[in-house]
Amino acid sequence: LSSKLPRVGTTIFTEMSALAQQHNAVNLSQGFPDFDPHPKLIEAVSNAMKSGHNQYAPMGGWLPLRERIAEQIEQRYGTAFNPEDEITITAGATQALCTAMAATITEGDEVILFTPAYDAYAPLVELFGGTPVYVKLQFPDYHIDWDQLQHMISHKTKMIVINNPHNPTGAVLKEEDLDRLERIVKNSNILLLADEVYEHIIFDGLKHQSLLSRSALAERTIAVYSFGKTFHMTGWKLGYAVAPQNLMKEFRKVHQFNVFSVNRPAQVGLAEFLTDGSQWEVGQMYAQKRDEFLKLVSSSRFKALASHGSYFVLMDYSAVTDEPDMEYAKRLTIEKGLASIPVSVFYNVPTDHKVLRFCFAKNSETLERGAEILNTL
Amino acid sequence: LSSKLPRVGTTIFTEMSALAQQHNAVNLSQGFPDFDPHPKLIEAVSNAMKSGHNQYAPMGGWLPLRERIAEQIEQRYGTAFNPEDEITITAGATQALCTAMAATITEGDEVILFTPAYDAYAPLVELFGGTPVYVKLQFPDYHIDWDQLQHMISHKTKMIVINNPHNPTGAVLKEEDLDRLERIVKNSNILLLADEVYEHIIFDGLKHQSLLSRSALAERTIAVYSFGKTFHMTGWKLGYAVAPQNLMKEFRKVHQFNVFSVNRPAQVGLAEFLTDGSQWEVGQMYAQKRDEFLKLVSSSRFKALASHGSYFVLMDYSAVTDEPDMEYAKRLTIEKGLASIPVSVFYNVPTDHKVLRFCFAKNSETLERGAEILNTL
Ligand SMILES: CSCCC(=O)C(=O)O
Ligand SMILES: CSCCC(=O)C(=O)O
Repeated sequence: LSSKLPRVGTTIFTEMSALAQQHNAVNLSQGFPDFDPHPKLIEAVSNAMKSGHNQYAPMGGWLPLRERIAEQIEQRYGTAFNPEDEITITAGATQALCTAMAATITEGDEVILFTPAYDAYAPLVELFGGTPVYVKLQFPDYHIDWDQLQHMISHKTKMIVINNPHNPTGAVLKEEDLDRLERIVKNSNILLLADEVYEHIIFDGLKHQSLLSRSALAERTIAVYSFGKTFHMTGWKLGYAVAPQNLMKEFRKVHQFNVFSVNRPAQVGLAEFLTDGSQWEVGQMYAQKRDEFLKLVSSSRFKALASHGSYFVLMDYSAVTDEPDMEYAKRLTIEKGLASIPVSVFYNVPTDHKVLRFCFAKNSETLERGAEILNTL
Repeated sequence: LSSKLPRVGTTIFTEMSALAQQHNAVNLSQGFPDFDPHPKLIEAVSNAMKSGHNQYAPMGGWLPLRERIAEQIEQRYGTAFNPEDEITITAGATQALCTAMAATITEGDEVILFTPAYDAYAPLVELFGGTPVYVKLQFPDYHIDWDQLQHMISHKTKMIVINNPHNPTGAVLKEEDLDRLERIVKNSNILLLADEVYEHIIFDGLKHQSLLSRSALAERTIAVYSFGKTFHMTGWKLGYAVAPQNLMKEFRKVHQFNVFSVNRPAQVGLAEFLTDGSQWEVGQMYAQKRDEFLKLVSSSRFKALASHGSYFVLMDYSAVTDEPDMEYAKRLTIEKGLASIPVSVFYNVPTDHKVLRFCFAKNSETLERGAEILNTL
């Protein structure tokens, strides 16, 4: 068997988390909270299992949960989506991304990705016969150069992937960015894949500029979201996709033969929890964590770049060493007991960025242990 | 957007279950038990959530669960698989099927399917650029005509999909079938995709002939399994794939970017439950259910065909009407309150089979209600 993905290895998140575990390191690499979901949510999922919710959920997802989602989108972004046929519950946002690409990308399509790009995008584009076209975000604030994007668009451009708030950089889009995007795609057939899994994790009084908030964009967008990131249960693998009916129809053709449906107790429990008036808002909590971490490392030789969203912050270590980031990230884990993510893995070409990504979705104790190590370097 | 799967609609299972619900019909259509998993298993999953198992599981799955699987395979089929890199936990068997095909099928490949064929196979083959090649199982016992299969093999044949015990027919392979298969693939590069989700549901003293039980087959096989079918929790979406390391490596390249990982509490809870000396055996229970159902309908004008495995039985209704099965299945649901699955949907060409599939993974009360209706027809 010749590999369909010859250049793909094991995802960096698996690699670094395994290395962290092996060396008993403070793990600020793979993005996940080290605290639990609300006890009421756990109780609601337990109760769902105890009250017979153990067989297949409907293919599109548990309807009350889709209704909660539709309400939330309408409230936040002012756009109405029909829970019946425009929202689908997925086994995490990754499954939504994969399914969206599987349903749309065909041989010869070009898909525009911004680098640093989340590591799943390019392999998925290639798996379905497409070609990634890369546009580099502009250092040090990682903004999009829209003229450059415009320049990279061709008649083969099928899709642009917009990740906002952005992983790994913490950059967030402004209203003007959406204006530019709207003008660029307006008279085209270009689809948008909106990876907005950190929609609720945004700081500094900024507003999340969802592609769903503008009809001219929403009409061509498949947007993917993650309950794991909002409710601290990344391990439950629960997310969703939102798209206009014509796109969702294609999405579901693949979804039904990819996973068919998603863990029912988790869906029923979460719907119950959300009916209870529970909040989706976690921005405040994560803003505090960011500030706490930045304060703890303020005298370190690692210099934080601005993070306005997501639960990640990039740190420039060029004052410490000129080792390449991959080498240095591994050495930090093995020798110093602190795991991070080297940012160069998110580029298509060799880069000499000297920044590492740290996840601050952690308890104070974990943040303190991590900072302590950073402060000695 | 032009559809990548123009001929695909909504899966028959969604369609019939929705129709059943709408008309408050006895639902013997979509295959799922109407009884719950063991209370200890539910308790173990609840405890996993309460004890902090809420963030990403490892990409390959929770290791203790993979170890239980490896033990079980070795015990039943006599073949050793390394839990580390030859077993992967999936979000149900469907995700395993999809991932296996995504990882292996390329443009122009031919994939051999036996009809009636589970409805996910052909769309998945086509989604990844392959062409399904159909071999018809021989009525009325639905055995494989190996000469015919041999005849359909070409230099383009990439894979043969072997579903055993077989859904929807309940046919099971004999040792001689594996002999023939072995001879056919021996000097080829043909891969085997073994859908053995009903491995434990086999009757009449027959032994499940797993492709994993012979090294000459196992070395080229990706085998997929379903915890949902064995432990009555189809809605948890928990299954696994088994393959030699070189194939599993390719499988995981896709798996990590399809779902990344699978619901952790369910994995941890099930591993705990299985450590407790709990049994995987459900064959006896389902044999009783089959017998119970067949006895209840023995005086009906519906004539049961032999079912030696799976939780399905086909019933020939030609003594009742000569309506096409799709029409009749819908009318039975709407007018008589009994939902089944028309078998013609599992064929690539129009068939006039006059058989409906009934699921007997049901409580006695449900089976009685279903039988009562059948007995009036
Ligand atoms: C799917 S594992 C990786 C989690 C994550 O999104 C990240 O660390 O960036
Ligand atoms: C994935 S829903 C269908 C369940 C099933 O395997 C069947 O009814 O055949």
